[in-house]
Amino acid sequence: MSSLAERRARLIVHGETPYNAEPPLARLRASYRTAADDFYVRSHGDLPEIDADGYRLRLDGAIPTALELSLESLRSRYAEATVTATMQCAGNRRADMRAVAPVSGDPWDGGAIGTADWTGIRLGDVLREAGIAEGADLHVAFESHDLVEGRPYGASIPLAKALAPETLLAFAMNGAPLLPEHGFPLRAVVPGFAGVRSPKWLKRITVQDHPSDNPIQAEDYKLFPPDVTAETADPARGHTINTMPLNAVICEPARGARLAAGSNTVRGYGVSGDRAVVRVDVSGDGGRTWAQAALEHDAQAHFAWTFWTIDLDLPPGEHELAVRAWDEAGQTQPALPDDTWNYKGYLSAAWHRVRVAVE
Amino acid sequence: MSSLAERRARLIVHGETPYNAEPPLARLRASYRTAADDFYVRSHGDLPEIDADGYRLRLDGAIPTALELSLESLRSRYAEATVTATMQCAGNRRADMRAVAPVSGDPWDGGAIGTADWTGIRLGDVLREAGIAEGADLHVAFESHDLVEGRPYGASIPLAKALAPETLLAFAMNGAPLLPEHGFPLRAVVPGFAGVRSPKWLKRITVQDHPSDNPIQAEDYKLFPPDVTAETADPARGHTINTMPLNAVICEPARGARLAAGSNTVRGYGVSGDRAVVRVDVSGDGGRTWAQAALEHDAQAHFAWTFWTIDLDLPPGEHELAVRAWDEAGQTQPALPDDTWNYKGYLSAAWHRVRVAVE
Repeated sequence: MSSLAERRARLIVHGETPYNAEPPLARLRASYRTAADDFYVRSHGDLPEIDADGYRLRLDGAIPTALELSLESLRSRYAEATVTATMQCAGNRRADMRAVAPVSGDPWDGGAIGTADWTGIRLGDVLREAGIAEGADLHVAFESHDLVEGRPYGASIPLAKALAPETLLAFAMNGAPLLPEHGFPLRAVVPGFAGVRSPKWLKRITVQDHPSDNPIQAEDYKLFPPDVTAETADPARGHTINTMPLNAVICEPARGARLAAGSNTVRGYGVSGDRAVVRVDVSGDGGRTWAQAALEHDAQAHFAWTFWTIDLDLPPGEHELAVRAWDEAGQTQPALPDDTWNYKGYLSAAWHRVRVAVE
Repeated sequence: MSSLAERRARLIVHGETPYNAEPPLARLRASYRTAADDFYVRSHGDLPEIDADGYRLRLDGAIPTALELSLESLRSRYAEATVTATMQCAGNRRADMRAVAPVSGDPWDGGAIGTADWTGIRLGDVLREAGIAEGADLHVAFESHDLVEGRPYGASIPLAKALAPETLLAFAMNGAPLLPEHGFPLRAVVPGFAGVRSPKWLKRITVQDHPSDNPIQAEDYKLFPPDVTAETADPARGHTINTMPLNAVICEPARGARLAAGSNTVRGYGVSGDRAVVRVDVSGDGGRTWAQAALEHDAQAHFAWTFWTIDLDLPPGEHELAVRAWDEAGQTQPALPDDTWNYKGYLSAAWHRVRVAVE
């Protein structure tokens, strides 16, 4: 295994403590499944170092009997499951919103996203075996080993999503144990939801009748209208970000690239929280005209991104490339970052635009 | 019961044969559940007159035994179910696209939509009792008594949607038997999908390994990119319209209304095929600034629209009101009809804009 320092050197680092980093877009686009050491890292506190042998996961709350499970007992009591799913930060593409007005948080480009084969056990199997009341209006709260301003990281998901077959307690990523920065030895994987709902370094899972009251859940990761500011924001009125919206990114060519006139290959990804991406339109003239890209998708992976590729014939001059995706409901993205701007810079999902010079 | 002629007189009629009509928007917005005689009518052929006593529904195809069911046997063999759901034409709001370029089909305003309590039996109950292989990659094809260019109307839905608890064979609307123009004595109700997949005057249901080959399914109701024309369209490459996209409409004031300066109430609906509408932004200045409307939604009705209301303070002058909705995935609508235009005028879902004069 490479060292964290080596892996850090491969990424674009937005912050050291907490450690936040993303891969360059061309490298991200090189493989449908993202290598663990190319996978974005979003931390809110420290990177806990956990001894696998002494590790115990506690399960309690609105279940008949509380449980304490070692990694061995988890793996022996429940069937192993692998889900190919995209993980994405709610702040992915935040940098594009800065053209409208300042936003808080790290200026993620389009690389705060990645796709992996996640292997673990189904959270639903654990909850059902523990005697959960299916269909109840309950929430499943996670608490983690990392400390955020002195308090354990915490977030929750509605029970229905916790019971869905895609939701895992994962111990492996692309067939190998989780790297320390990705949550070793055990993390939640909640496909289709923002990464904030897939806590790493899991310590405790509590079934309860209300969402987590941890500040990560109760205050952060809320979507506000454009007129709301840090001073006026009322967390109780913000929309809790769970399922991620439709989005698309041009990964190649890079912003500001100098290209040769003629046919140029443009590549990227499209993604939607829980719907299929059915069409990707690419423009060589800032959105005046569009052509349809070829799509590449793992048909078994409902919660994974779609890769797309198109050859565009570009004459000499300055051009603005643009991309927009369409989902299975025939919904598409807004054109301008103004149309989705919010002071926290979440869910930046307007057409992605890349200016290039053709010689 | 009123006569068809009386009901016709209440509506804005786009065509007599086939009979296509929608209610005025203010009347549509007056009631969360739309009265049957205010409900839009979309026909593709004649309005069949069916004798309920002699009526039989045939069920065949990939099931162990074909069935033929009278209305009485349907109602006695299966449990009655009521679902509050919005029905919507794929061409709703098509008129707004004409500002971009011509589109085919009737120029529906925002009234090709309505919400009702649909009562019938669950299609899934019928299919399961008939021994359907759940989870199979099958399609459920409907055939109807109305004739479209000499051929029975036909359309299909994927098996998973046919088995979903919201999908009904309905014999009543808002507690009364279906009106003739709404499919008496029995119609499909496929909540969240475009109305085309909820055939009226049902004759036959066939379980098969491919979508319906009826032209309604195989050729019409396909979403194409903006560069495709009637001459170049290849139906096999169009996206089959099933789940409907996020949309919102200003029902009051009406386009061109003259208002008094000061506080004016603006009202409308928001709707999404299968996601909750979580926020509705309304603008009094064409989208430069926004305020959030109060929402009204039947919490039990996952597949029904959301009503919204806001008081806007409007100074004297000409103003463009605009509305955009946000769904639970934090997705919103494109700003301009150019962004969704297609030659068939389907899924017109850009911001709805209404110009008014304030005196």
